Amino acid sequence: MSIIQAKLKERELKLAPYVPSGNVPSPDELNDVSDFIDTSSLLSSEDREITTLGIDDLLKKYKDGSLKAEKVTLAYCRRLALAQKLVNCVSEVRFDEALEEARREDEYFAKTGQLCGPLHGIVITLKDNIKVKGLPNSLGLLGLATEVETEDAAMTTLLKKLGGLIIAKSNTPSGILYSETVNMLFGRTLNPYSRKYLNAGGSSGGEGTIAALRGSCFGVGSDLGGSVRHPAALNNVYSIKPSVGRTPCYGTLTGQPGQESVQTVYGILSKDLDNVEYALKAIVESRPYEAIDATCLPLEYRKVKLPDTLTIAFLDQDGLSTATAPIIRGLQIVKEALKRQGHDVIEWPTTYLKELEDAIHPFYSADGYKPIRKIISESGEPLHPLLSKAFDGAKDLRVSELWELHQKRSRLVQEYLQLWNTHNEGKRIDAIIMPVSAFPACLNMGVIPLPYTEVWNALDYSVSTFPVTRCDTKIDRPVEKSKFISELDRQVHRTYAENLDKFEGGPVALQLVCNRLEEEKCLAMTKYVRDLLSTGEK
Amino acid sequence: MSIIQAKLKERELKLAPYVPSGNVPSPDELNDVSDFIDTSSLLSSEDREITTLGIDDLLKKYKDGSLKAEKVTLAYCRRLALAQKLVNCVSEVRFDEALEEARREDEYFAKTGQLCGPLHGIVITLKDNIKVKGLPNSLGLLGLATEVETEDAAMTTLLKKLGGLIIAKSNTPSGILYSETVNMLFGRTLNPYSRKYLNAGGSSGGEGTIAALRGSCFGVGSDLGGSVRHPAALNNVYSIKPSVGRTPCYGTLTGQPGQESVQTVYGILSKDLDNVEYALKAIVESRPYEAIDATCLPLEYRKVKLPDTLTIAFLDQDGLSTATAPIIRGLQIVKEALKRQGHDVIEWPTTYLKELEDAIHPFYSADGYKPIRKIISESGEPLHPLLSKAFDGAKDLRVSELWELHQKRSRLVQEYLQLWNTHNEGKRIDAIIMPVSAFPACLNMGVIPLPYTEVWNALDYSVSTFPVTRCDTKIDRPVEKSKFISELDRQVHRTYAENLDKFEGGPVALQLVCNRLEEEKCLAMTKYVRDLLSTGEK
Repeated sequence: MSIIQAKLKERELKLAPYVPSGNVPSPDELNDVSDFIDTSSLLSSEDREITTLGIDDLLKKYKDGSLKAEKVTLAYCRRLALAQKLVNCVSEVRFDEALEEARREDEYFAKTGQLCGPLHGIVITLKDNIKVKGLPNSLGLLGLATEVETEDAAMTTLLKKLGGLIIAKSNTPSGILYSETVNMLFGRTLNPYSRKYLNAGGSSGGEGTIAALRGSCFGVGSDLGGSVRHPAALNNVYSIKPSVGRTPCYGTLTGQPGQESVQTVYGILSKDLDNVEYALKAIVESRPYEAIDATCLPLEYRKVKLPDTLTIAFLDQDGLSTATAPIIRGLQIVKEALKRQGHDVIEWPTTYLKELEDAIHPFYSADGYKPIRKIISESGEPLHPLLSKAFDGAKDLRVSELWELHQKRSRLVQEYLQLWNTHNEGKRIDAIIMPVSAFPACLNMGVIPLPYTEVWNALDYSVSTFPVTRCDTKIDRPVEKSKFISELDRQVHRTYAENLDKFEGGPVALQLVCNRLEEEKCLAMTKYVRDLLSTGEK
Repeated sequence: MSIIQAKLKERELKLAPYVPSGNVPSPDELNDVSDFIDTSSLLSSEDREITTLGIDDLLKKYKDGSLKAEKVTLAYCRRLALAQKLVNCVSEVRFDEALEEARREDEYFAKTGQLCGPLHGIVITLKDNIKVKGLPNSLGLLGLATEVETEDAAMTTLLKKLGGLIIAKSNTPSGILYSETVNMLFGRTLNPYSRKYLNAGGSSGGEGTIAALRGSCFGVGSDLGGSVRHPAALNNVYSIKPSVGRTPCYGTLTGQPGQESVQTVYGILSKDLDNVEYALKAIVESRPYEAIDATCLPLEYRKVKLPDTLTIAFLDQDGLSTATAPIIRGLQIVKEALKRQGHDVIEWPTTYLKELEDAIHPFYSADGYKPIRKIISESGEPLHPLLSKAFDGAKDLRVSELWELHQKRSRLVQEYLQLWNTHNEGKRIDAIIMPVSAFPACLNMGVIPLPYTEVWNALDYSVSTFPVTRCDTKIDRPVEKSKFISELDRQVHRTYAENLDKFEGGPVALQLVCNRLEEEKCLAMTKYVRDLLSTGEK
């Protein structure tokens, strides 16, 4: 049996006891499965009810004894097993272990009347690159498929310590080196909104789809160039990409081990924005800097009072490509909602965006991908075309070249702060709202314009994503353009125009960008916008 | 006229109007000039009195109108001009400009009755690598001697904004690439405690001697491997090296532009510990992260209450060399003082120190010093032997090599946090007190063991220095050692034994190491130790 077959078989066996009986439709039978679980009866109504409770409600029920952690965990295991059948989102399964841990938490509560921590009975999934003792972290690579970790990542240690129940790890691109979740080991993770045509985004694509289908209370993913926000947006869920230092990062894998020129940061994804906030707050309030992770900052979780009048800047492009019609409509919806409340809505310039992109893009491949190439060549794994494309032209730079790029990047970061403070007639803005992607999710093996997200990694700003609507091709007719800002821009708009049907129903989500280490403010504004939009929809 | 002659002439002309009349003794006539200024009458008694006031007292006198900024600045200009004649500490002179600014501050006060900021009328010197509009920052290199800066560094902008009066920049080693302040342009800065034999340390050697001679209220220096603490200790003054992010760093020069594997941080030096604390507090409380420097952290200045019983670990070596007799005695003095107060004093292991040193040392030269070499080869400057030694073997590494070192470093940083938290029977320690140097200042062109300070840059911990005593060779007899922990260790002890007379009177200062971003706690403990020692001396 090949490594792949053995791996898939092992996963199947671990999932089998939890898979609800009954057939699931094929993509040809049902392309959009975003509400399949909640509208079909494959899952019991009780399980469905439990798995749509927010963390606050769960904790209330734990505290008053009306729910037990084991029951909740079991409901999530069944739901995730079903999600797995629909979209292939899981890499490693940890159901049995999590259920055992849940039982211990129930015993603890029975004995003490206390919850064991702020994440007591809270079901979590982790991106495959976050180490969990006893499981491999393959990143979809055959060469890493069977190497079992002997230690937890700092994030895993912390979540377990707070009472969190980790039920699974989720699929990624090979080596998490591109933005479409497909690899040689586990295959493709499908986008629940359009399993046939649209991809799940990446690199936290598994987490994105799990969040969309409520396969856990929240998921944790990594973001080096958009890897939390991109799949969050492409699956229409909420997320936060914090600035570096607010969440633990030690003991994780990336495609560029030791790369620090733009730092990988760990963020939260969930269908429920309150869960995102709760998770980040629990992590920050646990003071991970004291003993969990030496890179975490001693910055407490701060209460935020938003100003009565917000100043929100809008941007419909990233300097390299402009947004397609549904995304433009999404921006318009939010803009109008804010204007109606009397907030200051301004247009934001593309200043420095292209320069930032140029400065940081070389960082991602500055070691020529040597470590990943070594793993691949030793395992004999055939190169996935997307990995092959990522490797194309990547070479191991000289340190002197890297340091020149650092200087360029630092200058732009400093200048962007001035822009943020002064561009609006000398008044500091509160946030920028802009697309995460030019598309309402991207086509399988299609164009993926990424600078929309990468620039905020370069700047280390705090950024959320939030869903707005879905693509409606009757309204969202291709933008008539005679002039394109780049070849990529032309490709984006041609792709949309030529594949209109395939984008039907695609998620329209945006990102809300705050300054560095302003996570609390970022989430407060995102909640405000969410509430405005939900009122507007009624 | 050569570049050097022109440069020295220019400096002389700028200083001339302020140099007190009268002869100063040559090093052969008076080797130790540490109290020369305060005991001779070259400076008026009024000037001497003004220049020994702490910042708090100065501000009180400004507020009640009994002193004016111009008068204070003038007193400091005279004092620094005299210090310059004694130890050659100044690179660039800014007396006229600072006096003009002082007059404007006096006018502002006269008009409004308010001070113009927390540093109103506070006289400051800056290490040569901190850019000041209108002045060159040569780093002692001929190739940079005449290039005039058109912009202020973020630190300069901030200090000026807070009312600080920058009167001069101070001398450094060539390219700030070694730890002895001597270069081809300005020559050698002398150690005021022993002008003939001991060096001023580095790379903030100019600042170290200015602090020792009270040439400013405080100085600002950079620390990448000990460059604030080493000269502070070798000149028996107080200093703080904060963790990265508490003080602005943008717009400065280093010998390794773009190097970020260990980050350069800007710290404060002063003869007066309260001035060090005041300066850091003023900087942090100004919220430089908002508009001054994008790398600063939104971490407010925190009030600290020290525990009744402190747990202080002591270490008399750095894993590569052990301290000489006077330093051992200094440690003993502090240890006994703490024990008498009932604090827990423990011995600290050398665990990870050598590994940390090995991991980070290559970072300093990982670009092969390309940019500095270029400047030097273009100017035709002959290589100073210490620079030549620094260049020896340095080569432009591959990024893949650098990133492997990053991984090693990150693992050690994480493990050191565990050590800090658990080594003392599972109880987190409050601080480590240890030498800054194995010597009571180092001999000119002699051995300089540096890992004592470098490891704390690798860990990004907050560290202060404080003076304890001075070398008394009648008491501090060479340690009888039959076994050495390294060849360096053997050299250190042989150097001390063979040059005993030259070390007479050399400063004995120590560093107090706290965890990352614990500057407030670090300074609170340093003040506590200072008070204990001053009581003990009475």
